[in-house]
Parts: sequence; C-alpha cells; structure tokens
Amino acid sequence: MSSTSQLRSLNYDNINPHVKEAKYAVRGELANKAESIRRDLEQDPSSHPFDHVIFANIGNPQQLDQKPITFFRQVLSLIQYPDLLNEANAEAARQLYPEDALERARWLLKSVKSVGAYSHSQGAPALRNSVARYIEQRDGHPADPESIYLTTGASSGVNTLLHVVAAGPNTGVMIPIPQYPLYTATLALLNAKPVEYYLEEPSHWSTDCNALYDVWNHAQAEGTDVRCICVINPGNPTGASLPYKSIEDILTFAAEKKLVVMADEVYQTNVFIGEFVSFKKVLRDLQKKVPGKYDNVELVSFHSTSKGMVGECGQRGGYFELVGFDPKVVAEIYKFVSISLCPPVGGQCLVEMMVNPPKEGEPSHALYKKEYDAIYNGLKTRAYALHDAFKHMEGVESQDPQGAMYMFPTIKLSQKAVEAAEKEGRKQDEFYCMELLKATGVCVVPGSGFGQKDGTWHFRTTFLAPGTDWVGRIVDFHKGFMDKYRD
Amino acid sequence: MSSTSQLRSLNYDNINPHVKEAKYAVRGELANKAESIRRDLEQDPSSHPFDHVIFANIGNPQQLDQKPITFFRQVLSLIQYPDLLNEANAEAARQLYPEDALERARWLLKSVKSVGAYSHSQGAPALRNSVARYIEQRDGHPADPESIYLTTGASSGVNTLLHVVAAGPNTGVMIPIPQYPLYTATLALLNAKPVEYYLEEPSHWSTDCNALYDVWNHAQAEGTDVRCICVINPGNPTGASLPYKSIEDILTFAAEKKLVVMADEVYQTNVFIGEFVSFKKVLRDLQKKVPGKYDNVELVSFHSTSKGMVGECGQRGGYFELVGFDPKVVAEIYKFVSISLCPPVGGQCLVEMMVNPPKEGEPSHALYKKEYDAIYNGLKTRAYALHDAFKHMEGVESQDPQGAMYMFPTIKLSQKAVEAAEKEGRKQDEFYCMELLKATGVCVVPGSGFGQKDGTWHFRTTFLAPGTDWVGRIVDFHKGFMDKYRD
Repeated sequence: MSSTSQLRSLNYDNINPHVKEAKYAVRGELANKAESIRRDLEQDPSSHPFDHVIFANIGNPQQLDQKPITFFRQVLSLIQYPDLLNEANAEAARQLYPEDALERARWLLKSVKSVGAYSHSQGAPALRNSVARYIEQRDGHPADPESIYLTTGASSGVNTLLHVVAAGPNTGVMIPIPQYPLYTATLALLNAKPVEYYLEEPSHWSTDCNALYDVWNHAQAEGTDVRCICVINPGNPTGASLPYKSIEDILTFAAEKKLVVMADEVYQTNVFIGEFVSFKKVLRDLQKKVPGKYDNVELVSFHSTSKGMVGECGQRGGYFELVGFDPKVVAEIYKFVSISLCPPVGGQCLVEMMVNPPKEGEPSHALYKKEYDAIYNGLKTRAYALHDAFKHMEGVESQDPQGAMYMFPTIKLSQKAVEAAEKEGRKQDEFYCMELLKATGVCVVPGSGFGQKDGTWHFRTTFLAPGTDWVGRIVDFHKGFMDKYRD
Repeated sequence: MSSTSQLRSLNYDNINPHVKEAKYAVRGELANKAESIRRDLEQDPSSHPFDHVIFANIGNPQQLDQKPITFFRQVLSLIQYPDLLNEANAEAARQLYPEDALERARWLLKSVKSVGAYSHSQGAPALRNSVARYIEQRDGHPADPESIYLTTGASSGVNTLLHVVAAGPNTGVMIPIPQYPLYTATLALLNAKPVEYYLEEPSHWSTDCNALYDVWNHAQAEGTDVRCICVINPGNPTGASLPYKSIEDILTFAAEKKLVVMADEVYQTNVFIGEFVSFKKVLRDLQKKVPGKYDNVELVSFHSTSKGMVGECGQRGGYFELVGFDPKVVAEIYKFVSISLCPPVGGQCLVEMMVNPPKEGEPSHALYKKEYDAIYNGLKTRAYALHDAFKHMEGVESQDPQGAMYMFPTIKLSQKAVEAAEKEGRKQDEFYCMELLKATGVCVVPGSGFGQKDGTWHFRTTFLAPGTDWVGRIVDFHKGFMDKYRD
C-alpha cells in the first residue's frame, strides 16, 4: 500500500505530535526484541544460546510464575459464576471453596449487583468503604469513602489527575529522576512540562529537599507554572523507601509552594527495610502538630492490585484517595472518570479483598498468611541475591534494596564498549542491555528509559524471576562483556 | 476549608480548560439525581411516589437484571481459579462445569498464562486470532490478528484513535448528531473540532450522504482540517441501522475526501430489522469492485463485550481492527496503548468467547442458544412495546426501533411547559426528564446530551428494564404532564 500512502488521511508527519513525543521504554525496543526472541525459541529451541526469555523489564509477577493468593481467586471465581452460590450447588461448592470465600462472594455480589454491570464511575460505594477503613487502620487518621476513586490499575488514576492539572504548555509538574515513565509519557501527551528533580544515588536514592527548592526556583524563574510534585514511594525504578522525615520535608515544601502532591504508593507493601509511611499519615500528623500551615495541601495517593504480594497486574484494579481538593475540582475529576464509565468490576472486587483480606480466626486466614509471607520472603531473598551479585560485578554499583520490585544499578563501560555502542548508534545503557538480552535472554530496561544524571548509565531489573540461574546468567555475561571490551 | 481555597494549587479557574469543556450527560445531573433518589428509597421506601429507580439512562443490561450467558461466566470462573482444573478437583468440578467450559478455560489459560499477568499491550495473540477468524466469517474477507487491538471496553479504543488523529485545535472530526457523547467529550479533552453532520429523523435517522459533502465543504472553507468521520451503526442514541448502500456512500465520501472512517459497531448484534453489515465488509467489497479507488481508505472498527446479547459492561472487554493505516502511524497507536500496559485480561478472554461461542454439537451450545435468543427476543419485544407506547403519547413521535438498545423520541412541549422549564433555568428536554424522574423514578437522558437540531427536543431511553410496568409509569406521567401544562 506504500504507493497510496500520500493519499491517506494519516501519516507520521500529520498525527498528534504529542503522541509522537511520548516515550515508554518499559514496553519499547528491548521488550519487542525480547518478544521476538521468545517467538524464535517457540519455533526453534536452539535458535538462541538460552532456552527461554526472562522478562525482568516489567513488574509482572504472575508472568514469572508467582502464584496468585488463593482466597482472592476463589472469591473472583465465585462472583463470576454466582450459580455456585445457589442451594442446588451448595454441596459441590463446599468441596471447592471455604466458607469465608463463599461469604465474601455473596457480600461482594450484593455490593456490585453483577460483575457484568457498570458500577458507579467512582467505584461501587461499599467497596470504597472498605478502602477507607483500610486507610484509617494504616494511618490512624479518618478516611472518607467519598474521596476514594477506584481505577483501572494505578495508571488510569495518574492519567486522570495529570489531565486535570495540565492547564497548558506552561504547567509544570515536578517528577523525580529516575522515574517510572508513565509520568513523562502522560505529560508529553498533555503537552505539559516535566520539572525534573534528581534523586541522590549515593545515599540510597534519597530525596534531597533543599534541591526541591532549587529546582522550583529555577522553573519558576523560567516562567513555568509549577502545580504539582510527583513522588514514587517506594521508588520505581530505584527501590528506595522514604523515611518519615523526608515525607515531612516534601509536604512542607508543597505547602509553601502551593503544590498538589501526587504520591504513587503502589509498592506500599513491598518494603524490606524499615516501615512504609504514607503521605496521608504524615500530612494528617503535620496538620495536627502545626495547625494552619498544612491546611492547603492537596494530596492524591495511588494504590494498585498489580504490585505488593497481590501481583494481579492483569486484573487492572487500583484506587486513589483525594485529600484537600476544591469541591469544584473534584466535580471535574468525577466527570473525567465518568467518560470511561467505570473500572473493571472484578478488579474493583480485588481491591476490596486486597485491603480487607481474611482475618485471624477465619477459615482462609492461615493459607492467606502462608502465601503472603512466602511471596514477601521470596522477593526479599531474590532482591538480596541480586544485590549480592551486583556487588561483585566489575564496574557495577547497586544501592541496598529497600523496597518495590526493582534494582537500578549503575554500570560503567570501558572506552572500547562506549565506541562499540556508538558504532551501533545506541546509548551506552541501551547497548549493554541489548547485548545482555541477546546473550542471556534476560530482558531489562536501560536507565535512559527512566532518566539518569548525564554521563551516568543504569539499567532497571525486577527481582521477580524465580530461581537464581538467571542471576548467574547475568554474572557470566557481564564478565564476558567486560573482558571483550577491556581497554 | 473554604478559607484556604485561595491557597490551593488547583481551583476551577486554573485547571485544564479542556476537561471543563467536556460534557458527558449519560452520567450527568439526571443520573446523579437518580442515584440520590435510590439512596433515599434505601433509607425510607416511602420517600418518593415509587418504590425503585429504573436506570434507563445507560445501556447497562445486568444492572437491570439481564442474566449473563452461562458458558461465558463458567469459563471466567474457571480461569480465575485454575485449581478447579486440577486432577484433585476433577470430580467436583465436573459436577459444576460442562466439559467444553473446562476445555475452553484450559485453552485460555494456555493463551494468557494467568488472568493476573499483564498481557501483550495489544491483547494476547491467541485471542486476537479468534477475533480475526470471527471477522473473516462475518464479512467473507480476510482479517489479520496483527491489526486487532483488544481494549478496555470500546471507549478506550475510541479514546486511542482520537488521540492519534487530533493533531491540533484545527483538526476536524465529523460526528453524527445526535451522537454518543464519548465522541464530543473526547474531542473537547483533545481540543480538536467536532464537525457535526445531522442524521435524518423523519427517515428513521438515516444518513444523508449529500449532506456529508456539504458539511465537509463548509468546514474546509472555514479552514478546518477534516481528518476523520465517525459513524455509529447501529445508532446510539437513534437506534437506526445503516443499509449497505449508505455504508457504500459513506466510504466513497471518505475515499474522496481522504478521511479515516471510525465505525462504532458495538451494537452489531442488536439489529431488529434487516441484517448488520460491517464497514469492513463493504470496504473490501468496494475494493474488489472498483480497483484502486478505495485503496487509500483507513478504517477502524470498534466492538465491545458490553452490548449485544453479552451485555457484560463491568468486565470492560472490547477490540478494534485497523485497516489500511500507515505502518508508522500504527507504531504510534501501539506505543500509545502500551502506556496503559494492557486491557483487563478477564475482559480479553470474554472477547474471545463472544466471537467464538459454543458451536453446535458442543455440550454448552443448546443452553447458549436458548439464553442468547431469549435475550434477543426480550429486547425486541420491549423495544416494540415502548415504541407502541410512544406512538400513543400526545406530542411524542418515535421512529421504528431498528437496532441498538435505545429509542430517541421527539417531544413537543406546550408553551406553559416551556415557561415552567425557563423558570427553572432548564432546557425543555432537561425539564421534562427531571419531572419524569421525580414522578416515576425512571431515569432517561435529555436529547441535549447527544445533540439535536435546534428547536427540537428528545430524550434517550434504553429498553432494557424488565417488565412493562415502567412503560406504564411513563405513559401515566406523560398524560399528567401534558394536562398540567396544557395551554
């Protein structure tokens, strides 16, 4: 059809330029190459020097054999086929499902009527109640179900909030570097300005609050109307976990500079060192401690069923909580989400179970706890195994794994390797990751997909893949790579 | 918090103006009022002159007691809890599930690995294969799984395509009036121009192709860069069904004017008069019949699991097929959808079953057919009952119900009623619909939410609610309303 391309309505030069500007490396060139290798291996298992691809490019636990939590799936199974709850099937159902799963399924169906019916655009009210109770228990401060919005994964929530914030090309949104590229991609689509603040790699990718003021001053001086600061805690791709004091400092900065705080807290249960503290908790603490000063802070916090020990990415569940927003702005947020009708109702029910899992004394509690702990410990073990491997790799430095599902080590390449990358027209980190993929089948994402300080190079890897064989593959590849390109 | 509102980052005057411009009446004021009445009745069943609200504002079959198709739900139930497929549970499972449901579940799980894993952003390849086979069988022309994109309902697909098309404030997209407000809302968000073409009410809301040229000429003369024409067939809110000849004419117009055709075909199985013909079929027919002339046509067709006899709105399944697009544009479409990671995997599996239901000779076929036919016939019966009621109502005119799930009758109000509406600061149709809701609990949507010719007034109602009592409620209300406001 190339002969008719000049006759088409759409070509690369006349479509929405903001779509073209958006970049999303997590599913970019490396991921496409990995997928094509996977297909090669399906056709011919000897086509590559390894027998399977390891998708360490994306936090997708169940793709890497993480088993879902049984109680969640039992209930999701029941609500999809409510006939199982009928008297006629009671005996067979009781063989397959514990009593509390049957009970929860009945309650959820009462709350949503049917998994196949559109719910309230904000999410079914009864399920939002459970979320509010979870937040109250987590933070020790009240939460209002009317301020909870169930979403299609956390991504759709971030998309909603950035849509409302982005008033024009001059609107600035502060984002950490490195960051999860959803933020820059969405800002590109909305033609708004990312205002970058760098995380401090040497101190476990911490947030330097003085630097926030500098970045803000600089952006303001350039005429950018900074409206919002995004924080990812625990960090993606860094794996950092913010201490209480840093959250206080960020909120103080936001209060002084009149900024919406977008707290991406989807990894809130993936914490290996210390304890997760939510922005909501610290904000309410501060509002009590220093009356007046923090009343103006607008906070939105995101959570998801895709991460944590739930790991149900494909179910597309999530929520956000709004704190301190103007009611007229809230009305616009509601209208915006209503255009997409509602999040998947099965995913909504999964959110409810995530925040309200089986309790002690209930039939499913023991199994739930066992599964939950096994996933948690497995992640932690693999994180440290990977960290240990990185520590012993020449030219690689890696911060302690504190949380999330990722590590983001630095790599330093030799001059020869730099030249080899240039010859292929690739950035250094892209070159390294592509060589790694081709040699080992391990797919990671170059640091340039997340942002990094000029002249530094990283890659992001998840630590989700089972076993340790693949860590060995990376170690061996790296040794060979360093030897091959030794100056 | 009002004393601090001037201290907030966001207020109604400084947020994204395009979000404010977007209108989505299907879930607007009337729907909110209906929801608040529903809550009143929950607290106090005597608080209104009726005992329950009928949500006829939205095509949400299962909210109105339509039973899901058993086979679909059996399989969705199994894939959520794969332990049911284990040998250990074989006996109990066989009591609850037919053999072909077990078989399908095994196949789907092989295809997606887990309902809880992110899939390919375009949707799992094996499921896209089934969609392509369905399209081939429907149209008698080949379809390519690589051109199929599974989506989160049809809405997210429409959102994707409009995002790519909308190059700037000058980009024009032709939309039918009346239309489903997703189109105008999304164009408002994207700051692109809706170029309206009016459907012909007196001839069953048909499409006058000569008028398309006039509208295009007029827009072009005004400097609008018209890129795309949207068609909803069967029609929402009109219920019209396009004949083959009209589709030919629209495609000829699109070929001549170099326009992308966006065919919203989500009601393709909801046809009561004649047969559904897809744009893809007619395009391929024309390309064979008149070599060369139609080679440049870019067509995207949308389908959904929310409508038809499936009616699974809450599962958020859908797909679109791209035909004739430039590969570089396709790459941008793929990147755009990858930012949202993937559509709900359960919804993807439901799409597969919708396009590949149980076949004759398979254990579930008889029940599937019985359920399917009962839903179809129920919808048709209720459509005609409603049509019959409208025919006998003073000042109301309604076209024959040809398809979809809606009727869009005209109403003519007396001068006194017009004045009463003005006194409340409402448009005539809004006033009528609000009075109807308050008196009967039946929630419909004013025509102004969809667009209508100046000086005409309509409302859209679904014909999904079971029984006929609610039709009687409308008839009685209308009589009382006309008497109350008689000039």
